[in-house]
Amino acid sequence: MSATSFLRRLFGRGDGIDQRTSYLVSLCESLLGARGETSGAAIAREALAVYKSLDENAREQFFDVLTKDFSPAPEAVGQAADVYRYDPTPESLIRLQEAVEPLRQELFRRLNMAPGATAALVEMRRLVLKGMAKHPHWKVIDHDLMHLLRSWFNRGFLKLERIDWHTSAMVLEKLIEYEAVHAIQGWPDLRRRLDSDRRCFAFFHPQMPNEPLIFIEVALTRGMSASVQRLLDMSSSVESGTADSAIFYSITNCQEGLRGISFGNLLIKQVAEVLQRELPHLRTFATLSPIPGFRRWLQRTRGQLGAGADAKDHIALLDHIEKPDWHANDVPEPLVKLLQQLCAWYLVNARKGEEPLDAVARFHLSNGAALARLNWLGDTSQSGMDRAAGMMVNYVYRLAGVERNHERYFRHHTVVASRAVAKLARECPLASQPPASAEA
Amino acid sequence: MSATSFLRRLFGRGDGIDQRTSYLVSLCESLLGARGETSGAAIAREALAVYKSLDENAREQFFDVLTKDFSPAPEAVGQAADVYRYDPTPESLIRLQEAVEPLRQELFRRLNMAPGATAALVEMRRLVLKGMAKHPHWKVIDHDLMHLLRSWFNRGFLKLERIDWHTSAMVLEKLIEYEAVHAIQGWPDLRRRLDSDRRCFAFFHPQMPNEPLIFIEVALTRGMSASVQRLLDMSSSVESGTADSAIFYSITNCQEGLRGISFGNLLIKQVAEVLQRELPHLRTFATLSPIPGFRRWLQRTRGQLGAGADAKDHIALLDHIEKPDWHANDVPEPLVKLLQQLCAWYLVNARKGEEPLDAVARFHLSNGAALARLNWLGDTSQSGMDRAAGMMVNYVYRLAGVERNHERYFRHHTVVASRAVAKLARECPLASQPPASAEA
Amino acid sequence: MSATSFLRRLFGRGDGIDQRTSYLVSLCESLLGARGETSGAAIAREALAVYKSLDENAREQFFDVLTKDFSPAPEAVGQAADVYRYDPTPESLIRLQEAVEPLRQELFRRLNMAPGATAALVEMRRLVLKGMAKHPHWKVIDHDLMHLLRSWFNRGFLKLERIDWHTSAMVLEKLIEYEAVHAIQGWPDLRRRLDSDRRCFAFFHPQMPNEPLIFIEVALTRGMSASVQRLLDMSSSVESGTADSAIFYSITNCQEGLRGISFGNLLIKQVAEVLQRELPHLRTFATLSPIPGFRRWLQRTRGQLGAGADAKDHIALLDHIEKPDWHANDVPEPLVKLLQQLCAWYLVNARKGEEPLDAVARFHLSNGAALARLNWLGDTSQSGMDRAAGMMVNYVYRLAGVERNHERYFRHHTVVASRAVAKLARECPLASQPPASAEA
Amino acid sequence: MSATSFLRRLFGRGDGIDQRTSYLVSLCESLLGARGETSGAAIAREALAVYKSLDENAREQFFDVLTKDFSPAPEAVGQAADVYRYDPTPESLIRLQEAVEPLRQELFRRLNMAPGATAALVEMRRLVLKGMAKHPHWKVIDHDLMHLLRSWFNRGFLKLERIDWHTSAMVLEKLIEYEAVHAIQGWPDLRRRLDSDRRCFAFFHPQMPNEPLIFIEVALTRGMSASVQRLLDMSSSVESGTADSAIFYSITNCQEGLRGISFGNLLIKQVAEVLQRELPHLRTFATLSPIPGFRRWLQRTRGQLGAGADAKDHIALLDHIEKPDWHANDVPEPLVKLLQQLCAWYLVNARKGEEPLDAVARFHLSNGAALARLNWLGDTSQSGMDRAAGMMVNYVYRLAGVERNHERYFRHHTVVASRAVAKLARECPLASQPPASAEA
Repeated sequence: MSATSFLRRLFGRGDGIDQRTSYLVSLCESLLGARGETSGAAIAREALAVYKSLDENAREQFFDVLTKDFSPAPEAVGQAADVYRYDPTPESLIRLQEAVEPLRQELFRRLNMAPGATAALVEMRRLVLKGMAKHPHWKVIDHDLMHLLRSWFNRGFLKLERIDWHTSAMVLEKLIEYEAVHAIQGWPDLRRRLDSDRRCFAFFHPQMPNEPLIFIEVALTRGMSASVQRLLDMSSSVESGTADSAIFYSITNCQEGLRGISFGNLLIKQVAEVLQRELPHLRTFATLSPIPGFRRWLQRTRGQLGAGADAKDHIALLDHIEKPDWHANDVPEPLVKLLQQLCAWYLVNARKGEEPLDAVARFHLSNGAALARLNWLGDTSQSGMDRAAGMMVNYVYRLAGVERNHERYFRHHTVVASRAVAKLARECPLASQPPASAEA
Repeated sequence: MSATSFLRRLFGRGDGIDQRTSYLVSLCESLLGARGETSGAAIAREALAVYKSLDENAREQFFDVLTKDFSPAPEAVGQAADVYRYDPTPESLIRLQEAVEPLRQELFRRLNMAPGATAALVEMRRLVLKGMAKHPHWKVIDHDLMHLLRSWFNRGFLKLERIDWHTSAMVLEKLIEYEAVHAIQGWPDLRRRLDSDRRCFAFFHPQMPNEPLIFIEVALTRGMSASVQRLLDMSSSVESGTADSAIFYSITNCQEGLRGISFGNLLIKQVAEVLQRELPHLRTFATLSPIPGFRRWLQRTRGQLGAGADAKDHIALLDHIEKPDWHANDVPEPLVKLLQQLCAWYLVNARKGEEPLDAVARFHLSNGAALARLNWLGDTSQSGMDRAAGMMVNYVYRLAGVERNHERYFRHHTVVASRAVAKLARECPLASQPPASAEA
Repeated sequence: MSATSFLRRLFGRGDGIDQRTSYLVSLCESLLGARGETSGAAIAREALAVYKSLDENAREQFFDVLTKDFSPAPEAVGQAADVYRYDPTPESLIRLQEAVEPLRQELFRRLNMAPGATAALVEMRRLVLKGMAKHPHWKVIDHDLMHLLRSWFNRGFLKLERIDWHTSAMVLEKLIEYEAVHAIQGWPDLRRRLDSDRRCFAFFHPQMPNEPLIFIEVALTRGMSASVQRLLDMSSSVESGTADSAIFYSITNCQEGLRGISFGNLLIKQVAEVLQRELPHLRTFATLSPIPGFRRWLQRTRGQLGAGADAKDHIALLDHIEKPDWHANDVPEPLVKLLQQLCAWYLVNARKGEEPLDAVARFHLSNGAALARLNWLGDTSQSGMDRAAGMMVNYVYRLAGVERNHERYFRHHTVVASRAVAKLARECPLASQPPASAEA
Repeated sequence: MSATSFLRRLFGRGDGIDQRTSYLVSLCESLLGARGETSGAAIAREALAVYKSLDENAREQFFDVLTKDFSPAPEAVGQAADVYRYDPTPESLIRLQEAVEPLRQELFRRLNMAPGATAALVEMRRLVLKGMAKHPHWKVIDHDLMHLLRSWFNRGFLKLERIDWHTSAMVLEKLIEYEAVHAIQGWPDLRRRLDSDRRCFAFFHPQMPNEPLIFIEVALTRGMSASVQRLLDMSSSVESGTADSAIFYSITNCQEGLRGISFGNLLIKQVAEVLQRELPHLRTFATLSPIPGFRRWLQRTRGQLGAGADAKDHIALLDHIEKPDWHANDVPEPLVKLLQQLCAWYLVNARKGEEPLDAVARFHLSNGAALARLNWLGDTSQSGMDRAAGMMVNYVYRLAGVERNHERYFRHHTVVASRAVAKLARECPLASQPPASAEA
């Protein structure tokens, strides 16, 4: 009788647990018990197959068992820690580490022997994250998976690949599926985005060759783009002249199960290097980015515009943008000015703790980019209007300044802005706050 | 001033520590402190370059610092363990895990961002292992590296590749360099070993594409090979008929820095599967293996042959093999018989704890192979004569029996042997011991 | 002054010839004159670029010049032939061959040094073929191009590649563009045609890596397919059971410029071999083919149905199919029978010279396939109804019989048909003709 | 009965012809007769196998049959030529071309359907060339093979590939086998020649992926190399500084069967382009070349040194170099000077027809290179001393001048030489001849 058929009899604990869950748990125990690795790979394969076949209920039971039965024993941990506390030798440290590491981690490592297991564990973490609100104790599973995935998806293992019309349909359809910032409207749209005046790059992991982890879309343009609709226009003519700017207009994380493992920063920098090498005449590397939190913040902040005559005028102006299609008609010049000042102020000064309030700003500024330019009506889509009154912003990555900006950001949370943006912020009615440092 | 140039000033602690070591340590601290990952990759690259440039003395200092300054603080660990002991919540477990994990691990993970770092960390472990006898406290470095490497060199990430004359010279010269069992005498010898009646396979890791981790050499023969010299003969004619046996005659671990992470078992099985698919007429998968511990054991065991007349005769016979070139002349039939009986007894019954005493036997038997046949004068090289009086053994991997044998081995340490070998062992003068179980 | 700039002055013969044509002709002369090959490649590149930039009128002029000025001189040819006629030595043969070969061939060979030239010459032949009705003297260009292309696209140089969802979008969109038999309705349709119960293969030439020369679409089914609409239904469920039949339901030549160089026959056979190896349980390799000439022939043949009472009935029945949507309602059983008999008779007996009248039948039967089954309402598309009253036919490729059938076809133009089809043909009212030979 | 088995009975014409030859001829006839291409590929495969199995005698018979029976019929050719002479229509031209083309060509094209046939036909031409002295009538086979091979090995189909230590052993051992100019002394020598300060490139054809057609060896050096022994020294240290020169020190045609199809010129230029792109700081592209005909010419020319006192001195000096090892001791300064003058004169002025007498000079000068520098004792190997009294020469490829030099060479056979070389030639005692044009 083989290990597997023997174990098949073990399931059915009679405690209300699904038979398949029970069988899976017994496989996991068996996998952990396997000495030598002969049977290991076969058990891992079987365990993975069973896991994939679980329905939601059975899967929740399995996660519960993982939480409860595969954590370290408190008493044993305490004793090992006491030994180390009073006698911190190499041996006592190693014994402590072994006592503290949950069996879950070893289980996941052994499961990873099965073909396709890496992708399955990424997917498992996605489900754990999704269920954590309801099952807060799953946090330990998340923690262990995160620990392993962070190690396996270490930057050193990632491959940067260019995506273009030579790429397989299998990968291309994933772009269509995953792109969230500016949804891809089918294959003709995708084809335009991969034309000769565009670039697209993604990171892949050797174990998941058809699954992009993150991808970025770039437009090669003359001058810094100010409108995303113009970039997305499928019928726009292909730029044939010599571009001087690379505009990063969309960056998409594809794997929810890798949340918290950051690839974007590295991607932007590697792509900038690759482009600079391929196209030495490129002068500007910048984003065309949304400002997702502006109107929400504005809603909360209106009240602080004060009580003077000016303030009343301002508030009256701002009422304007509550009307549908307000931007389709003539927009009063003072409103344009006011919104730009407020938006600049928001980006430069609004904080959450010490960091910028706007999530996209936080990402690019912490990477070492600088606020370069506000773009009036840069995104007139519904969501662009709803979230930022149509404004967009360019963050510029200057190769020479990135490292210094990054350090200043991390030491002092300095927001580096162009003169123009800094000026707008200073002229904002809210400007009693300290100004952002201007860029040298 | 950039992070790096700033740090460059920090080195030189004035405590007898090499300036480069000191600079490297400051880079490591800086790497651990890097928030965001912008500067991280650059620091990792610099740190790796500095590390590689250290001389032996400076490197030893660095390892000492890693041991001393990058281990968890005993008191903090103790407190976190106490909390978990008395309140084993997910949060307290996570905090405990964080307290226990040495900074070294995070350091190594971050170093791995630099190109070539994986190979460098494998090499670092080799040096740590080599120095551990003299520096036993380095054990914690070994433990942390082992932890990471085991995760990164997880089976799921390995690629099986066939090695033949189409393989790059870069990889082929590594085979010449690493082969330890039966040294390769230059390129013509290698070419014969890769001819059409031979196969060679290796595991590779995506991060080390030109570095085999382990490789195996196979001869396709009619019948089970009995002499390794015949296989290694460069001028032997290439078997053109239909082979019925695949003989694994050499298996070599290439990376000392991955010691303890076992690939051999998996390699043998995957290779057997690949060969069976390619050559469906293969009937036998077997090794032609050395018996490294036989004569050492025999030396210790002579005394137990007893005091009767037979025993005297036996001891007189055994004196024979102390003479140089004894096997070149006629060998008395009784000596042949006695040595075979003793060798069979040794393989079947001699133990170290519960496991077989012979290291090669231990490896193959625990993998699920069976002792198939002793080969008189199977290896007449100096080392073959010195270690095993010229005998070799075939371990056979029967696909149907491997899993069962493996289980019996792990439960009862059963040594599975063919009738012929079992009979030899039973007829041995030493045979008051219980016989090995015969193969069904 | 470089060769090129010097030549640039030569154009403009002042004889009504387009300046660019004139310049191109001078480049061609220069290319033929280039000794050594140094300047050759550069001139070829320039010539190709100029050729591609010609408008239709200039191109026609160029073809006229190619016809007139690059043919061998009749008198010189005659003399060389006379020498060979009276003194057939190796030398005189070689001199004759040189005299007869048009300069055009050498010109095309030298043009082929330029990157992309092979594809450009294929395209040139397409244009020559298209214009030949109006310019019959271009026939010599066609003949020379055909000579070269047949040599360059020699079977030995073709690569069979599987096309699936891993294939690049660049190639996949060509399938959508070229498929003529059953047009592909965009990417979702294509995706269904490449799903796990389908196969697609194409031939490629090393010089045109993104250009399929010919491709074939295959459905893996249980039993021989009878309806193409069912195969093409995008929402059909994917066959997950074990298919026993491979149905070739579409084969498309992609390069009009390679007309007359036949790849289809070879493709079908290589694909059948590949599939048999991959899926050993396949029992039947057959097409599901249109019968493009049936109704046209029927129209012409009606009159021969005779004058008896039966004949009148038959003609009355046949009137039925002139009504629109006749097949959507109940079709009288006698009509079904009559059409099948006539169609079988058509396929088996209708001839053009000694070969079958139906072009598709001619192709498959000359390849060695056999007529296997008529499928009533196998293709209810407009074109299927118009051309064949909705009928389709399966030609079966029996590996054992293909070579024999092929030989019989070429010796005696034997049409090999199944018993069922042969019987239908015999029962046809037209059957005073000799019956087709039944299949053994 | 299949075509093949039927044909198998045909062999044995009873006219002294080897049975296998006879069988092969019948296969060839059958291959030419095959309509459709179904049986074609199978017959081609069989014919090729039989051809390869022929012994020398049978092969000679086969070549004789090819010569005799597969040439066009003189009378038919004459008639077709007459028709074309008096009525040069497209149709009559096409018919003439068909009449003149030997069946051999179609036979070779059809043979090429078999796997491996291209390489086999290249090899066939090698044997034909080798036997042509004895069998001059085989010239027509050579001519037809040359015609086809020139078409198939058209530059457009060649792939330039870098050869280095990542290349397969299969290809590398071919380099060792083929290198004729400066023989490779085994693998360590090869490894040095592929080290980081060297480059090697080869052309491949898609049908012969493991067979280099031609390869070139390049050394990256500081300054123009003057001694080939220094380059070939296996223990020389690897140049790590920044090289400014690429020295082509060996170029080898690998396929005797492609004699007369020139790849070298193209190879040098493509390699220069690739190197310039990879290493933008390279300033000089030059060869370090032998002067194979110098001493032979000198032997014949001594007599023309005249009768004056100077002439006697010169002749006395020249006697010096007849002694063995003359260069190992002090060489009189006047002899050094005289030999250099004579060698310069030889390279610049000695002719064969209008072209340079020296074969290597002819090759590089016709490619557009210029004579740059004579190197005293540049090659002290036995062959270097025997052929050129130890001298070597650098030909320089100046990208800007190559095309112009090439044209001047082909128009006026101008030998472009540096001032230094031109001066040496002018100072030569033989210098009553017109001087070479100096380089601008």
